Amino acid sequence: MTDARDTSVTPSDPPLLRGAGLTAWRQIADALADEIGSGALSAGSQLPTEAALAARFGVNRHTVRRALAALAERGLVRATQGRGTFVERGQIPYPIGRRTRFSENISRAGREARGELIAAAEIPADPETAEALGVAPGTPVVEMLTVHRADGTPISTARIALPLPRFSGFAAAYARLGSITRAFKDFGVEDYTRLSTRIGARGATPEEAARLDLAPGRPLLAVASVNVDPEGRRIEATRTLFAADRLELVVE
Amino acid sequence: MTDARDTSVTPSDPPLLRGAGLTAWRQIADALADEIGSGALSAGSQLPTEAALAARFGVNRHTVRRALAALAERGLVRATQGRGTFVERGQIPYPIGRRTRFSENISRAGREARGELIAAAEIPADPETAEALGVAPGTPVVEMLTVHRADGTPISTARIALPLPRFSGFAAAYARLGSITRAFKDFGVEDYTRLSTRIGARGATPEEAARLDLAPGRPLLAVASVNVDPEGRRIEATRTLFAADRLELVVE
Repeated sequence: MTDARDTSVTPSDPPLLRGAGLTAWRQIADALADEIGSGALSAGSQLPTEAALAARFGVNRHTVRRALAALAERGLVRATQGRGTFVERGQIPYPIGRRTRFSENISRAGREARGELIAAAEIPADPETAEALGVAPGTPVVEMLTVHRADGTPISTARIALPLPRFSGFAAAYARLGSITRAFKDFGVEDYTRLSTRIGARGATPEEAARLDLAPGRPLLAVASVNVDPEGRRIEATRTLFAADRLELVVE
Repeated sequence: MTDARDTSVTPSDPPLLRGAGLTAWRQIADALADEIGSGALSAGSQLPTEAALAARFGVNRHTVRRALAALAERGLVRATQGRGTFVERGQIPYPIGRRTRFSENISRAGREARGELIAAAEIPADPETAEALGVAPGTPVVEMLTVHRADGTPISTARIALPLPRFSGFAAAYARLGSITRAFKDFGVEDYTRLSTRIGARGATPEEAARLDLAPGRPLLAVASVNVDPEGRRIEATRTLFAADRLELVVE
């Protein structure tokens, strides 16, 4: 029942497998990914130079570059212009519970949280949003498209719908304050709790991938949630897409 | 903020877009997927014949077949030898909470649950399993590889580890009873609760895809969970891979 693959590659190892159905860059990427996963290459540390990796694996630098690009696509490393390639800081644990707060969750992981408004509009609620908010389809809502970052790295993008006229002007408050919790306070909602959370997974479309700075097709956690105010009124229906390479949900 | 794509295609619609960056089969698959998503093609209903779809979209049957294969890969339809192609019954809502029970969850969705033992071994715990069970790495555990079905369709596969010597012979009990809950009862554990649940997402490897009867790369929900007995002792550490095309997690 143990995994029979042995992808560890060190200078004393035999050369890359030929004819194993995996290209050289893929074998190198997998070997480095395993070293990151096992902690042999620790979070935040710098990878050896392209030249050193090329010598170690017995390939040219183009092949190493392709492997590093694949690791970057997986969210495991981050290339910094002129400074080299660094191991990413590992997946952020993101608690999901009765009182889920993005900024609090990210701060708890020792990162700096920031929410950014991409677009907003007052529109008639589509059937799914209407059901989530408990209103009739076509009822006006304010819908916001947002991107959320941890230490500058995008980790999620969301479509957030709030009922009108109660939250008229909410998008401006959110754009100013960068936090749903603070924007709610601005509207007199001192507290809110999670009514429901549904979690699916799918690949990123090219547009979503661009917004999250990852490769199309990379896995996303698709979370549909509804929040209520202290009186139990539904005040927010959100569909969030989390970059699964960068974050893990923790059920509280 | 609305989606500007219009992929609805009916006999009176203009022909498929040429040069839009999408092949004909992909456009047909997307159009049919939208009709399934909107409910125009309802769960359990039969799709039109290949010949009818070929006429409707103005393509040959080979192109229709490719589109239907893509929908089957997404888990949206199921081809039945000699009987045609049917719309799948929609995603199963799978509650995750303090008392998560596979069989109960599947029955609640009106499906028949079945757990199947693929392999089992008594092995030393790897570091991750040891941490989850709160024992030293290398401590003997029984590890089981399982596949779980709803109405015969595989919806998840799991690696389940239980501490030894307490659960020596557990695999045989599970193979006989087809349920973790019933096998625990057999070992005198009348109740158990969830200590922790972590949720990630990634693409299926070819081996996982074969086990779950889906295409490699299709999204999986990767759930790591720990269960405790009524005395709070850790009795089970499980890593489950759910087919995200077929199931949605619902946080309780």
